[in-house]
Amino acid sequence: MRIAVFAGDGIGPEVTAEAVRVLEALNIDGLELVEGDVGGAAYRKHGHPLPQQTLDIARSADAVLFGAVGDFSLDHLERALRPEQAVLGLRKELGLFANLRPATVFKGLEDLSTLRPEVSGKIDLLIVRELNGDVYFGEKGTRTLEDGRRQGWDMMSYAEDEVRRIAHAGFKAAQGRSKKLCSVDKANVLETSQLWRDVVIEVSAEYPDVELTHMYVDNAAMQLVKNPGAFDVIVTGNLFGDILSDQASMCVGSIGLLASASLAEGTFGLYEPIHGSAPDIAGKGLANPMATILSAAMLLRHSFGLEAEAARIEAAVAAALADGIKGGDLGGSAGTKEIGDAVLARL
Amino acid sequence: MRIAVFAGDGIGPEVTAEAVRVLEALNIDGLELVEGDVGGAAYRKHGHPLPQQTLDIARSADAVLFGAVGDFSLDHLERALRPEQAVLGLRKELGLFANLRPATVFKGLEDLSTLRPEVSGKIDLLIVRELNGDVYFGEKGTRTLEDGRRQGWDMMSYAEDEVRRIAHAGFKAAQGRSKKLCSVDKANVLETSQLWRDVVIEVSAEYPDVELTHMYVDNAAMQLVKNPGAFDVIVTGNLFGDILSDQASMCVGSIGLLASASLAEGTFGLYEPIHGSAPDIAGKGLANPMATILSAAMLLRHSFGLEAEAARIEAAVAAALADGIKGGDLGGSAGTKEIGDAVLARL
Ligand SMILES: CC(C)[C@H](C(=O)O)[C@@H](O)C(=O)O
Ligand SMILES: CC(C)[C@H](C(=O)O)[C@@H](O)C(=O)O
Repeated sequence: MRIAVFAGDGIGPEVTAEAVRVLEALNIDGLELVEGDVGGAAYRKHGHPLPQQTLDIARSADAVLFGAVGDFSLDHLERALRPEQAVLGLRKELGLFANLRPATVFKGLEDLSTLRPEVSGKIDLLIVRELNGDVYFGEKGTRTLEDGRRQGWDMMSYAEDEVRRIAHAGFKAAQGRSKKLCSVDKANVLETSQLWRDVVIEVSAEYPDVELTHMYVDNAAMQLVKNPGAFDVIVTGNLFGDILSDQASMCVGSIGLLASASLAEGTFGLYEPIHGSAPDIAGKGLANPMATILSAAMLLRHSFGLEAEAARIEAAVAAALADGIKGGDLGGSAGTKEIGDAVLARL
Repeated sequence: MRIAVFAGDGIGPEVTAEAVRVLEALNIDGLELVEGDVGGAAYRKHGHPLPQQTLDIARSADAVLFGAVGDFSLDHLERALRPEQAVLGLRKELGLFANLRPATVFKGLEDLSTLRPEVSGKIDLLIVRELNGDVYFGEKGTRTLEDGRRQGWDMMSYAEDEVRRIAHAGFKAAQGRSKKLCSVDKANVLETSQLWRDVVIEVSAEYPDVELTHMYVDNAAMQLVKNPGAFDVIVTGNLFGDILSDQASMCVGSIGLLASASLAEGTFGLYEPIHGSAPDIAGKGLANPMATILSAAMLLRHSFGLEAEAARIEAAVAAALADGIKGGDLGGSAGTKEIGDAVLARL
């Protein structure tokens, strides 16, 4: 059981260090950790945000624990060399096609949301976002039209097998929750969405126990404001998933607590907090490592089937929160290491 | 001054009728109203949601007052015949490239939002959405790949002139407000967005008094939850504008009050409430006509330069609200006609 640890930029190294301490404290037999460079940190060392040796480390591992990437001081670089491109590269190279983004409000933390507590308190949803297709990975470019005008273009597409495998991921997730799946598309405008909808309906025949609904993306963005508690599992494409999952996360009001998994076929996966590299507080010991610690829990559960260990971590985090151990992002004053200690003490 | 009135489906005819009463009550010299069929209603009568004679009426007019389209019982039709396609057809055929969607919380109505009142009370923003390009109007289709898989595809693109004219609309709108323009794109992934960003920056040279910022669409969806009051004018493409403008509208909490304008080059424009055809309450006299009445005010201002008359309508609506005249959507009990009467009485 080999875990590649890619700490990345900004607060990445700090928060990842705490998650590693938690993993090590569990004394799991045969667990091995190996570090790799990614993002701006990798660019500075190797001239590329996702160097070959990092990819090799990932491929030699059974799972990746990821911190964060992003570094404003590298924004002048051409797009392919910017830190965030490492994220896209890892997703494509490792076949990470299913992004699971749970958004749940922790009991007692309803007040962190900008939504009224009676609305935010009901949020308990999971967004299953396709990560390997859509307009993200189609052909794209800038061209000069015959009449001399510049045009930027990107091909959006989904093939049926791409939709089928993420639909299965969505239905399976729904089976493990309250058996309601909402597929989000824009089938009134996009052919890509029409195919998406057709294939999701085909796949639904294999999951008669799951209730499938369809919603246009603009309406989904509205319903996430009006009544996010009505959603259980949402399955959607790469672009709509990018927008809706960030919207849903912010509805929770505590992105310092939200973990995510990006899964390949089989058990391989990459696990990361949904927050960014937060350069403004990097290196100050202020970042909340809970989301990364919870990502490590997701890793143990999804990639290694270590349900008991995953649950131990989650319980320890919940206990620390219940005892009032809160980072600055949650209105508390606990620092990175203090939070790590608190979770370790409650393991 | 000729206004084409396209009432459409569901509650469209009821709410439009009240707006027409308000327009007529102003006794504007030379104002002429002419009706046309659109949406499901047009399909039933003429076999097409946007018949040629409707387009002709629009072209013969100086502005269009639009109700709503949408009819679930026609969902089985091929996409090109479904009521909503009339909206896309009108936008393209009439060159309506700039969609102005104001989202403002009326004083005293902060509680209608699911956001906390201290957050919703600060919402006063305008989304300027491009309506004639992007993945909406590119080539699209479904094809069978060489290996036999079905694929749905849609071409996303923007040419520089398309971006330039909507950028000008955004900067001009910002000049008339607090001189802050936020351009929303996904330039870290899309070439279309990179060109968008480059051109918006070029155009900004002509508006040195406006402060321009850029934001990725996923972050914009988050910030609209976290602190919508921080936005003033947002300019964005067709697809992102579809999602963000609906999200912003729902943050206001009273979509029965929100009007919108879709403008062509020059003074021609189409004006409509942002709510839909609400088939569940259609024909019952329950729909709130205020958004349509406010759309008529936008029409007088933008297409005819009748600022005083527009302001009179807006003041009358505000006065009716202040006097507690509220539709069911606002938690009140006033019906369509009662609200129309109340606004007329306060003109
Ligand atoms: C960094 C960026 C390319 C990425 C995306 O758009 O997928 C990010 O927003 C995310 O959601 O992980
Ligand atoms: C009906 C639909 C095609 C339309 C759109 O996506 O533009 C609608 O959602 C809107 O925003 O006016």
